[in-house]
Amino acid sequence: MSATYVEHVEMTGHIVDSLLLPKVLDAILSRGGQYHIETLKLGERQDDPSFVRIEVRAESAEQLERILAEVHPHGAVPASTADCQTAVADVSGAYPDGFYCSTNFRTQLRLKGEWIDVEDQEMDCGILVDPEGGAGRCIPMTAVKIGDRIVVGRKGTRVFPPEAEIRKHELFEFMASPVSSERPKAVSVREIAHAMRKTRDAGDKVLAVLGPAVVHTGGSELVAKLVRDGLINVLFAGNALATHDIEQAFYGTSLGVSLDKGLPTDEGHEHHLRTINTIRRIGGIRQAVDNGKLTSGIMYECIKANVPFVLAGSIRDDGPLPEVVTDSLASQDAMRRLIPGVGFCLMVATTLHSIAVGNLLPAWVKVACVDISPATVTKLMDRGSTQTVGIVSDAEPFIRSLVNELDRTAKV
Amino acid sequence: MSATYVEHVEMTGHIVDSLLLPKVLDAILSRGGQYHIETLKLGERQDDPSFVRIEVRAESAEQLERILAEVHPHGAVPASTADCQTAVADVSGAYPDGFYCSTNFRTQLRLKGEWIDVEDQEMDCGILVDPEGGAGRCIPMTAVKIGDRIVVGRKGTRVFPPEAEIRKHELFEFMASPVSSERPKAVSVREIAHAMRKTRDAGDKVLAVLGPAVVHTGGSELVAKLVRDGLINVLFAGNALATHDIEQAFYGTSLGVSLDKGLPTDEGHEHHLRTINTIRRIGGIRQAVDNGKLTSGIMYECIKANVPFVLAGSIRDDGPLPEVVTDSLASQDAMRRLIPGVGFCLMVATTLHSIAVGNLLPAWVKVACVDISPATVTKLMDRGSTQTVGIVSDAEPFIRSLVNELDRTAKV
Amino acid sequence: MSATYVEHVEMTGHIVDSLLLPKVLDAILSRGGQYHIETLKLGERQDDPSFVRIEVRAESAEQLERILAEVHPHGAVPASTADCQTAVADVSGAYPDGFYCSTNFRTQLRLKGEWIDVEDQEMDCGILVDPEGGAGRCIPMTAVKIGDRIVVGRKGTRVFPPEAEIRKHELFEFMASPVSSERPKAVSVREIAHAMRKTRDAGDKVLAVLGPAVVHTGGSELVAKLVRDGLINVLFAGNALATHDIEQAFYGTSLGVSLDKGLPTDEGHEHHLRTINTIRRIGGIRQAVDNGKLTSGIMYECIKANVPFVLAGSIRDDGPLPEVVTDSLASQDAMRRLIPGVGFCLMVATTLHSIAVGNLLPAWVKVACVDISPATVTKLMDRGSTQTVGIVSDAEPFIRSLVNELDRTAKV
Amino acid sequence: MSATYVEHVEMTGHIVDSLLLPKVLDAILSRGGQYHIETLKLGERQDDPSFVRIEVRAESAEQLERILAEVHPHGAVPASTADCQTAVADVSGAYPDGFYCSTNFRTQLRLKGEWIDVEDQEMDCGILVDPEGGAGRCIPMTAVKIGDRIVVGRKGTRVFPPEAEIRKHELFEFMASPVSSERPKAVSVREIAHAMRKTRDAGDKVLAVLGPAVVHTGGSELVAKLVRDGLINVLFAGNALATHDIEQAFYGTSLGVSLDKGLPTDEGHEHHLRTINTIRRIGGIRQAVDNGKLTSGIMYECIKANVPFVLAGSIRDDGPLPEVVTDSLASQDAMRRLIPGVGFCLMVATTLHSIAVGNLLPAWVKVACVDISPATVTKLMDRGSTQTVGIVSDAEPFIRSLVNELDRTAKV
Repeated sequence: MSATYVEHVEMTGHIVDSLLLPKVLDAILSRGGQYHIETLKLGERQDDPSFVRIEVRAESAEQLERILAEVHPHGAVPASTADCQTAVADVSGAYPDGFYCSTNFRTQLRLKGEWIDVEDQEMDCGILVDPEGGAGRCIPMTAVKIGDRIVVGRKGTRVFPPEAEIRKHELFEFMASPVSSERPKAVSVREIAHAMRKTRDAGDKVLAVLGPAVVHTGGSELVAKLVRDGLINVLFAGNALATHDIEQAFYGTSLGVSLDKGLPTDEGHEHHLRTINTIRRIGGIRQAVDNGKLTSGIMYECIKANVPFVLAGSIRDDGPLPEVVTDSLASQDAMRRLIPGVGFCLMVATTLHSIAVGNLLPAWVKVACVDISPATVTKLMDRGSTQTVGIVSDAEPFIRSLVNELDRTAKV
Repeated sequence: MSATYVEHVEMTGHIVDSLLLPKVLDAILSRGGQYHIETLKLGERQDDPSFVRIEVRAESAEQLERILAEVHPHGAVPASTADCQTAVADVSGAYPDGFYCSTNFRTQLRLKGEWIDVEDQEMDCGILVDPEGGAGRCIPMTAVKIGDRIVVGRKGTRVFPPEAEIRKHELFEFMASPVSSERPKAVSVREIAHAMRKTRDAGDKVLAVLGPAVVHTGGSELVAKLVRDGLINVLFAGNALATHDIEQAFYGTSLGVSLDKGLPTDEGHEHHLRTINTIRRIGGIRQAVDNGKLTSGIMYECIKANVPFVLAGSIRDDGPLPEVVTDSLASQDAMRRLIPGVGFCLMVATTLHSIAVGNLLPAWVKVACVDISPATVTKLMDRGSTQTVGIVSDAEPFIRSLVNELDRTAKV
Repeated sequence: MSATYVEHVEMTGHIVDSLLLPKVLDAILSRGGQYHIETLKLGERQDDPSFVRIEVRAESAEQLERILAEVHPHGAVPASTADCQTAVADVSGAYPDGFYCSTNFRTQLRLKGEWIDVEDQEMDCGILVDPEGGAGRCIPMTAVKIGDRIVVGRKGTRVFPPEAEIRKHELFEFMASPVSSERPKAVSVREIAHAMRKTRDAGDKVLAVLGPAVVHTGGSELVAKLVRDGLINVLFAGNALATHDIEQAFYGTSLGVSLDKGLPTDEGHEHHLRTINTIRRIGGIRQAVDNGKLTSGIMYECIKANVPFVLAGSIRDDGPLPEVVTDSLASQDAMRRLIPGVGFCLMVATTLHSIAVGNLLPAWVKVACVDISPATVTKLMDRGSTQTVGIVSDAEPFIRSLVNELDRTAKV
Repeated sequence: MSATYVEHVEMTGHIVDSLLLPKVLDAILSRGGQYHIETLKLGERQDDPSFVRIEVRAESAEQLERILAEVHPHGAVPASTADCQTAVADVSGAYPDGFYCSTNFRTQLRLKGEWIDVEDQEMDCGILVDPEGGAGRCIPMTAVKIGDRIVVGRKGTRVFPPEAEIRKHELFEFMASPVSSERPKAVSVREIAHAMRKTRDAGDKVLAVLGPAVVHTGGSELVAKLVRDGLINVLFAGNALATHDIEQAFYGTSLGVSLDKGLPTDEGHEHHLRTINTIRRIGGIRQAVDNGKLTSGIMYECIKANVPFVLAGSIRDDGPLPEVVTDSLASQDAMRRLIPGVGFCLMVATTLHSIAVGNLLPAWVKVACVDISPATVTKLMDRGSTQTVGIVSDAEPFIRSLVNELDRTAKV
């Protein structure tokens, strides 16, 4: 092998115990490259950062490029950097060819010789550099306008992957990687309660992403209490959650099943449609609260407590309720506007919304995803929301335990 | 008990073996009413219809009304009928109070003394009577305009519930009620193949509703073949299915996982986004086929074979592709337009689209829903799509068996 | 058709609303027979029994026999009955050919002209008639001895299938047939609590059948409390439940995972093996309680409260603990001995033991089966334990709600 | 911190890319210790081993001991070693206190100054040293006899953990860690087929571990063909698989469901019991084959091809068949005797047997576990069978694809 294509990359941080260095070395070798570790300073204690400088060799420019692309998200940055490169968007609603594809990790651009944090960090976006060339932010494909300057290639960019392992013994590292129902649930409850309180104490917002099974299983009143107690500050859901929550307030049923007796009630299958129709006739959920028609439940408490919510439409919706945003791009934008300031996200019993919100959140917002199906959590993690702690459990009993834990600790 | 409120109801058909009569009697008793069977003519053979005339007694008008409401969907119609009643819509986008809520069963209205079939049968809708009062059709809530005449109450309406039991030994009754993975799969495959061929032979359309796991598990080429062979005639899916199908055509990966080697590929996580961006730059899937950029896969074959499709948007979409209908109400309407003429529906690996399409289909369009999670099928049936046969199986291997079976029988 | 083979059958009870008559009629028709309803007296009220006498016609003796075999478990008994017939067992450990195969429904034999209840009712057994010919009881295959008189054929036998529908509005009929996680859980909790209290008040025993996930999810102390409070009176489990329960008492872990912190502990994977070894060195669980080594947990409370238990061995066991019955037939016999007097059975988080115990219980012992996987409950019902109410939920949070409900109602 | 307790440990192999060194460093730090890397020689290429010598410091002897215990299974061995230590068993059926607890990784003992491989490697066992002190082997707890010399402590032992990462691109590394159904199935099929062929070519045995769903889903004939073709060489299963396989041969049903029509057949629920009774009357499966009563199916082919099998009993068994080993310890021993020579293990649709066999296999026997429930595979991996590749798929369609692939490649 006559490897003549060479680049030097550097890494800093908890690169050994966090498995980042091993991954980089493996990535080089498995793509046919060679490495020479020029410098390796290992931290002696848990808090000491390490530093490594690696010479990467490849047989061709293409091979070297592939290697550098692969090690980049692990934080291995070329030692000699230049400013990032941009191309001008030539069509609306699409990036230029060769666009840089964002992750949900913290990212920096080198602009005019300085490393600048990318704003609105979000995975699977391009990065728009402002006309002055002093700032960059993630921009969805459909928002691109002709003439926008979009980052292309990886040059002058660097990402800061989370140092997963190093924080193993801290908050939210109680869950091992495989998603299993066989975990002590009181611990999960305690940790989530702690994260919610800590988020509130820090002045940040707790975002709840809820599916209709929260209502079907009887959890409406419990979630309503969390809203009332100021422990849920933003709500993302769909037409079904809001409809069945209001159906319960109007009829005492959810999908026609009595939440009191557990039995389907007469004509109960019509309740959700009559609920939506009633709210549409009144003009909306807020109007139904204002005129005294709606007096309890999750949506009622959100209105009362001025908790902002996005009800995102889907093709399975009946009605829908007037507040539902039926356009999916408009829904995404509405959610994006409410994400800044969110410090913790609790997802319960919804695959669709969980993945949608997971797509929008930066990796540093911790997520707890509770679902009775292990597949939901696996999907979420397969799609890049690696900051997620998955808890395989049942909506209502889990939320009940959570409410009890929050009440218990509030008294202390 | 001094039951003085009386109504006579009649039922015709396979009312004993189909369990309809027992359900009606139970519904009367369990709501505190009394019944007297005035006439009961039982069919002697499997094909003979039965007839029953029942006197229903209740203690109050409300009780009698509740009973009549409950027995109505089982086909028990008041003996003395009048024309159906309508109210004029007083607001746009909502039905008048007391609106008749449709099922997905065949329904008739009594208009000017005649029983008329309701058109566009669909569950959870109101019924619009045309200005001349000669016809009625299901209308979604959002489509209501001020001044529309909407059916209210049950008077002058009758439904024809499917006589489930009587057809037990016919096509598509191979599945017992509980949803289990422990069923002979070759039989399910054979029955679905038979239903698809029979539907085509009758000149009807086969509708496929597909989730992205069809592509992730490697089923793209198999489905493409079904389209090419004329065995899939309409396709409903989302952005993800089309994107990953085209990603496979472009990169050989799905969600970045090589469909050849099963391993994540370098930068593979970016493939789906680059795929969407490329198609958006070209202008659409059709344009990509026309200009020779896209040359294989499900979407390619649909374009080539003029198989109409609806790609319904959702909030978890990246991009999306230009053909995606991002508004959920517009998506529903697009699907509604393609449903007439559909004789059989095959749903694979999608909860969201399965429930959405289940909501739109009349009960007489048979549905086979294949999903690896029993919960998907249970949900579908819980939401009223009782004509569904649920098969708990894995997308690619199941479709592979189906293609083999269709090929085998084609040769015969 | 010249149907010359004729038999008359009769049915009594809630045969219309319970769907038994429709099923019988369908069974006759679908097997090519004909029926003539000679007498049909319908009960007018919910509590009135009905009576029907049906003439069944078939074209051949074999066809008639097949029809009679099929309608028999639905309670359709030949009008003219004779005593039941027996054959003498010619080999040990097997029934004679043509043996009558029992169901778990109440069954009677006609012996010396009298209808006698079968004892030890259990599905999938033969029936042994005592030498005097005055009594019969279910006997497992392996218990048959040469010379035993075993019932053959259906003559002189009749079963009393449960009249499912008629009791729909009573205790434990809150669950519709499909097994779904989307049910109001507080209702399930309340109903199970009610059933446990009612069983205790009637002087009957509550049987708990528990899998190790009860301990893994952190439910050990909750179950221990139920034992202490006299609300669990018999326990069936396996080596794993007992081992991890004792592991928790010894080490505070379950499968090595700290139930306090949720994290795997150092050498935790060895804890369960060291636990078993310690108990084996002491001689058994009881000895460990007696000598003060074991001071908490489910097994401790069972020993203290003299709650009998069967720990049935399985091939996945480590150790096992000395109390574990390693022979599966001996385990079944040990469980059989403890079943008389059981009035209610709560199964949590175990597929193997749930199906095993479901096989042994008569159909009139109500069962609630709680499992996070819908497949477990579906399997149980597929295998004939139709008296089972399935609840898809998570072990610890569900038991916690149950304990809270029982505490709440105890105070009332 | 005055850390005065010091030990030196050494590691050799692919310790950086395999993540072993990072895990060791993290284990030291997180238990409050300190490390000093005295020597670190990194391999430059993929095949070069690395070497590290680490000084470990702790504040107390207990802390040092805890650290050494934790790093030991990662292959970190004290630099200065002595012979292993043993204690004499003082009771039968239990190890002495402080016994060494085995893993399923390759392990060596230092005996008389030499490192000797442990025989019969199996997790969760003790190690018996022979009287001459020249050899050691894993021994189950119940097999211990008074006077046996059992290894205690970790001194003079070392384990060779698999270097997982380094082999990522080889056979059987196609699956990423999360267990998902959304993987290309044709690749899994191809890899398993390749592993089976390779195992056979190497003169090793393929072990199949099968649950009854293989038969219920219709896979009996497919598996029978694999046995006939010499591609399955050992079979572990239970009473249910064998019974339903023979039921199919006798009646064409499985659990009473026709494998031809998919419908429950008349009296079909009795078939499995009559099947067992028939075999018991004949004397056994082999006798039924010999006398021409049993002429097809999995068990038939095993008898014909002299493929050894273990049918392990469980408490849910009816009958059971005469060949079933009803004692769980005897079953484990019967399986242990057939494991030597096994080079590959295919598990399909059985949680109980999969975990049981996973407990017995050494870590170097690759395992593919196919189950429709992700929970089964997660459980298997949670319990230490880390060499397992989990495939979430449906039994019959998956095996059908596997048979087709094996046929296709056989022709090449």
